[in-house]
Amino acid sequence: MNRIETVIRRIEEALGQGRAAFEKDILEAYSRDETSDLSAMPDVLVRAESTAEVSAVLRICNEEMVPVVPRGAGSGVTGGAVPVNGGVVLSLERMNRIIEIDRENMVAVVEPGAITGDIQKAALAEGLMYPPDPASLESCSIGGNVAEIAGGPRAVKYGTTRDYVLGLQFVLADGSVISTGGKFVKNATGYNLAGIILGSEGTLAVITKIHLRLIPAPRHSLDLLAPFGSLEEAMEAVYRILLSKTVPAAVEFMEEDAIRLVAGFHRKDIPFPEARAHLLIQIDGDSEESLHRDIEKIAAAIGLPGEEIIVAAGGPQRERLWKARRAIREAITAESPVFLAEDCVVPRSRIPAFLAGLKELFNARGLRSIMFGHAGDGNVHVDVLKGDMDYEKWKELVPGLRREIYLRAIGLGGTITGEHGIGCLRRGYLPLAASSAEIELMKRIKKAFDPNGIINPGKIIP
Amino acid sequence: MNRIETVIRRIEEALGQGRAAFEKDILEAYSRDETSDLSAMPDVLVRAESTAEVSAVLRICNEEMVPVVPRGAGSGVTGGAVPVNGGVVLSLERMNRIIEIDRENMVAVVEPGAITGDIQKAALAEGLMYPPDPASLESCSIGGNVAEIAGGPRAVKYGTTRDYVLGLQFVLADGSVISTGGKFVKNATGYNLAGIILGSEGTLAVITKIHLRLIPAPRHSLDLLAPFGSLEEAMEAVYRILLSKTVPAAVEFMEEDAIRLVAGFHRKDIPFPEARAHLLIQIDGDSEESLHRDIEKIAAAIGLPGEEIIVAAGGPQRERLWKARRAIREAITAESPVFLAEDCVVPRSRIPAFLAGLKELFNARGLRSIMFGHAGDGNVHVDVLKGDMDYEKWKELVPGLRREIYLRAIGLGGTITGEHGIGCLRRGYLPLAASSAEIELMKRIKKAFDPNGIINPGKIIP
Repeated sequence: MNRIETVIRRIEEALGQGRAAFEKDILEAYSRDETSDLSAMPDVLVRAESTAEVSAVLRICNEEMVPVVPRGAGSGVTGGAVPVNGGVVLSLERMNRIIEIDRENMVAVVEPGAITGDIQKAALAEGLMYPPDPASLESCSIGGNVAEIAGGPRAVKYGTTRDYVLGLQFVLADGSVISTGGKFVKNATGYNLAGIILGSEGTLAVITKIHLRLIPAPRHSLDLLAPFGSLEEAMEAVYRILLSKTVPAAVEFMEEDAIRLVAGFHRKDIPFPEARAHLLIQIDGDSEESLHRDIEKIAAAIGLPGEEIIVAAGGPQRERLWKARRAIREAITAESPVFLAEDCVVPRSRIPAFLAGLKELFNARGLRSIMFGHAGDGNVHVDVLKGDMDYEKWKELVPGLRREIYLRAIGLGGTITGEHGIGCLRRGYLPLAASSAEIELMKRIKKAFDPNGIINPGKIIP
Repeated sequence: MNRIETVIRRIEEALGQGRAAFEKDILEAYSRDETSDLSAMPDVLVRAESTAEVSAVLRICNEEMVPVVPRGAGSGVTGGAVPVNGGVVLSLERMNRIIEIDRENMVAVVEPGAITGDIQKAALAEGLMYPPDPASLESCSIGGNVAEIAGGPRAVKYGTTRDYVLGLQFVLADGSVISTGGKFVKNATGYNLAGIILGSEGTLAVITKIHLRLIPAPRHSLDLLAPFGSLEEAMEAVYRILLSKTVPAAVEFMEEDAIRLVAGFHRKDIPFPEARAHLLIQIDGDSEESLHRDIEKIAAAIGLPGEEIIVAAGGPQRERLWKARRAIREAITAESPVFLAEDCVVPRSRIPAFLAGLKELFNARGLRSIMFGHAGDGNVHVDVLKGDMDYEKWKELVPGLRREIYLRAIGLGGTITGEHGIGCLRRGYLPLAASSAEIELMKRIKKAFDPNGIINPGKIIP
């Protein structure tokens, strides 16, 4: 009996008959996440239903030295949930309960498979808000958000997942269960273990319960779309808005090529389809008057005549404003199913330099690129489309292109990735951003959590 | 030549003659921090002037297996900077530059010895704010704040030091220098190393540079003091204020015995000296009207007639409101130089149960206790005074008392310390809050950073 067969037998002894799936058609669905052009078959799938089951599976795999790949909703885009070394995919999709919304302490207690959008809705029903809003909100799970430190447009005002995790329960490779934090904001009791689990992309431990900080939900919000004659003008406006002491909840930008792409996709049924850049700004607060004052300050900071700004408080008009921004990925996929999706981060003030330099580079190589993202926090999405280029040629081109993009971000004081993580796609490039001393330290930390290297091997560390 | 002599010789070779101080009167000042009733003499003092010097000292001490205790301003209260195993105290007090306030990217770049209050002033000069406000603001250094995840009253609205660290440069035991993060908010590039350095109390690495996130400074702020007939009523009011969607910058409380103590100390020259509890509330924002609306909402939530609330926008009236709260520690020290200073945290809703239970316990044992702290975030200061009890009897009493306080906090869903850390005072109690699996993991993490255990030994880990 080989190791995989032993693992299947032992898991079924521990969890029950039929709990370790190994039928090819089932495994197929767990061989990929939302990463373009990447898949690898697992040997076994287990859909855990409790922390005890997660613990049992890890202990067995650790003893048998078989890889375990934890998986949330599979919405990652750097291959974090792809079992590149085979082994067991440990799905948390059934551990999806919102255990409690504690209104008095303003805390949510949830299982890792809970969908982020559902947590937001449950909080809102109590007048509370869970602010992080990754684009995949309606389908991604909170465990994955913690593992990747998911961000989203509202990070400008509200920060990222990192700012809302008050406590974690997680399971180590040897099956031991650790609980840290709880229904409180301040904690100085021993090492900040949640701090290193955050962003570890499922390579250190498997998260089984999460305490999230909630805040009072703002009563009102408005969206505002403004067209610009150039990306530089748009970014200059962002700077003036922030200096005007209005902190918008979100400040998203789209550059010319992104606008054109979506305008084509929607047959021009988007606002300002001819503009060179869009800013989409969200503001929120508790009184309508304060929001209107904010709009006046933003309009003054932008320096555009009132009629050139569209403001929407809700309904179809709001949908129309977000339509272009939300349709970008769909439009890209329709145009070119194979593409690079980069999410570098640079100091906010360097966004124009970063994007102008890249645009020039891509144009010189005859590559179509689409740029958009979070103007308020320097996290920019740069997608490069394969288009009808020969696949082999594209595959040859990609490593050099990635390297060039990352080096430019780092050269401007930024780094490789703001939200998507390193995963398996980018681990070869980590040495561009991290010294060998830093990578050696990461390896030692990995070993402290997972001495046999069974949890999600082949990710992050080069 | 013993190891200490070798270390002195090698440090002077590397840094220059006279840079390793070992005169008893100099060392004396570095034998203690602000922890009551604790001191230990170092063998050597080095005041580093650069990252390269920090690196050299660590490398030498690592090779010679001599302890190194990093020290900021020495304002800690759990013995974190006390060299309990002797060795080298590595003071960062000379590395105190505010390197840059980057207005455009809203980032401060500072050295670890910079005084937190000075960073706040430098930021404010640019219209920006660094929100964390530990009580020792004017004397504590930012490196220590990072090492301890310092909080303060404004954590209710603005969070703690953890929420403002964008990047760290730090030096490992072997002298290697690692830089993470930078002038950007989002980062998913490899493990979140800053996350585990935060709160590690100077036991994992020595911090040599810090990038801090700044936010636009609010234009206006108001303070408000309200008296209550009981602590329960005060805490009920806090709950109603938070539900009214007013998020105050700070909500501090003082219970009866704290008010009486300070009233005695100041000869009743404080507001409402006869009240059973005080709430001191700070609100801030950009328009005076919105602040006045907040005050109305708070007054309604509190349910007190207007004349029983004092509001101050600045000047001597504001000073008067904060006078009692700020004078507590001074009044305690005047009354009883030896005292226990605990800072447990419990879910906000459990503060009344926690404090009432403790008060009963202390009264039954004839001990005087003073309770105050951060009502908005569940972090409560419980100080127990030795008074004129025999010192030996007191020393015998303390361990059981601590244990009882911690067990009650944990029993209510809280933990041992919210701000002050474990240090050397509380490491024997860490097993109350952390399982053996968790403590074993902390030991392995410590080893990953500092294999020879030379950095700040005898702290945190039991």
